[in-house]
Amino acid sequence: MGMAYKIAINGYGNLGRGTELAIAQAEDLELVGIFTRRDPASVTSATGAPVISLDELPQWAERIDVLANCGGSATDLAEQTPAALAYCNTVDTFDTHPKIPEYFASVDEAARQAGHLGLISVGWDPGLFSIARVYAEAVLPQGESTTFWGRGVSQGHSDAIRRIEGVADAKQYTIPIESAMEAARRGEAGALTTREKHLRECWVVLEEGADADAVREAIVTMPDYFADYDTTVNFISAEELAANHAGMPHGGFVIRSGRTSVENAQTIEYALTLDSNPEFTGSMVAASARAVARMAEAGEVGARTLFDVAPGLLLPQSGEELRAHML
Amino acid sequence: MGMAYKIAINGYGNLGRGTELAIAQAEDLELVGIFTRRDPASVTSATGAPVISLDELPQWAERIDVLANCGGSATDLAEQTPAALAYCNTVDTFDTHPKIPEYFASVDEAARQAGHLGLISVGWDPGLFSIARVYAEAVLPQGESTTFWGRGVSQGHSDAIRRIEGVADAKQYTIPIESAMEAARRGEAGALTTREKHLRECWVVLEEGADADAVREAIVTMPDYFADYDTTVNFISAEELAANHAGMPHGGFVIRSGRTSVENAQTIEYALTLDSNPEFTGSMVAASARAVARMAEAGEVGARTLFDVAPGLLLPQSGEELRAHML
Repeated sequence: MGMAYKIAINGYGNLGRGTELAIAQAEDLELVGIFTRRDPASVTSATGAPVISLDELPQWAERIDVLANCGGSATDLAEQTPAALAYCNTVDTFDTHPKIPEYFASVDEAARQAGHLGLISVGWDPGLFSIARVYAEAVLPQGESTTFWGRGVSQGHSDAIRRIEGVADAKQYTIPIESAMEAARRGEAGALTTREKHLRECWVVLEEGADADAVREAIVTMPDYFADYDTTVNFISAEELAANHAGMPHGGFVIRSGRTSVENAQTIEYALTLDSNPEFTGSMVAASARAVARMAEAGEVGARTLFDVAPGLLLPQSGEELRAHML
Repeated sequence: MGMAYKIAINGYGNLGRGTELAIAQAEDLELVGIFTRRDPASVTSATGAPVISLDELPQWAERIDVLANCGGSATDLAEQTPAALAYCNTVDTFDTHPKIPEYFASVDEAARQAGHLGLISVGWDPGLFSIARVYAEAVLPQGESTTFWGRGVSQGHSDAIRRIEGVADAKQYTIPIESAMEAARRGEAGALTTREKHLRECWVVLEEGADADAVREAIVTMPDYFADYDTTVNFISAEELAANHAGMPHGGFVIRSGRTSVENAQTIEYALTLDSNPEFTGSMVAASARAVARMAEAGEVGARTLFDVAPGLLLPQSGEELRAHML
């Protein structure tokens, strides 16, 4: 394989750890270290990779081909990615869909100023699902695409429940409705409402003395998060939550149904079933870091998304090997 | 959308016609004409596009951005694509998997000599299935991929039956076995035999006086085509064949199951359900022609596969529009 690409991780939560595990699976990727805003002495990495204060990034930059920014979209990335691009190439999982154009512009400006490359919004949605939508619409321009999420844990919805008074802890599952998926396969999902496409299932641990009915009412009427869905609320003990709902499974479906002529309907379906959302997303971060290293080697500068990345760049093999074995 | 890319078709069978229909659906693609080795007066195009003798290609070349070579892999493409590259950029559906490296080399040489670009082996397998395999292996390097075909008509197997003495006509369906697909989703398909993954179902019209038992025996024992499969043979009338088996449905599944850690299994599934194989393949040819036109505009020269094509190039929208609406 020759020399390995030198990858670093910035931010060590679930996603940072998932990225670390993925880099360890790849012979052509070397983990230089994990940067953190916390006290490095307080962080122990899963693979024994060195943990370094983010303040030291400038001194490390020359030893890094690509920095994987594994912070959250809500606050971290909008600051961290442009700042890091002054020192090295980056990849991230920015996933606040409506803010992507603005984020892309800011990453593009920082990257061009420094002569670096920044690949944004990798993962599975945005990411592999976005790519599935693009290929599907390219081959079936006359049609409709529908995305379903789940069955899986929504971190944002779980957090929203936890902020309700009287809630000690909670996990929320998003569940696609089978009849809606069948309609999408027939090209008849366009008229479906939000309520007809997904269910929301909540597992809630109450604080002592909390009013269960009030908590349930607060959940099911919460605008944006739950009010538009059929939502079930189950109260359980902290022990049950830990025993049965500790994982972070997720997944979903991108379905496009279209017509290539009056006579002929065609359906494309892309599905993910994931035991661990952060590990899968981290694996996509690692593969994308490889592509960034190669594109930067070829002289590319600025911001990119996976729409700009030729698929062969994501795998370690040469083009010749891919043509012989994967085509 | 501005100026349209000028596409021409070479070869007017089912695939050429499917490509013609797809170009008619695209506002940014213009069909210049259909080239044929036959007498142009004997060919009537579906959309009224001009039909031109292939001998006249050199005089037309300056008016063509991309020529879609819609001939067969067995004999036509190995000659036609390198020859056409002397005059213009090309796209084709070369699908003889073991010969792809040799074909790529010959297309690459012809393309570089003339300063043109040739994209080979587009469609769905090779094509969209190949891309699905690449993305899946990139994100799950520790795992196994299994491809299933069908339920669908295999042209090659239908032809093989038609060559048997006593057979007037035939249609062969390839059918994936559900239990094998379930094993693939669990990551346990590696040990499955050919016989355990697909069934073959044959619908045969006998010539008058033909020996049905001899025909059945000739089919089920045919090496490479049928001997390794559980094959059912049904004898029907020419009228029944025409009424119930006139279409060209196909499809299939690429399933990859892998592990990102000891604890966590992850599964990716890409599925196609197609009423018309040639129309779907033709749609992919048309989208790929758009990508070729753009890559050639950017100065690219030589042979390429879809592994080298950034997905965003396949859609008419700008990168900015794709980021805002598809990511």
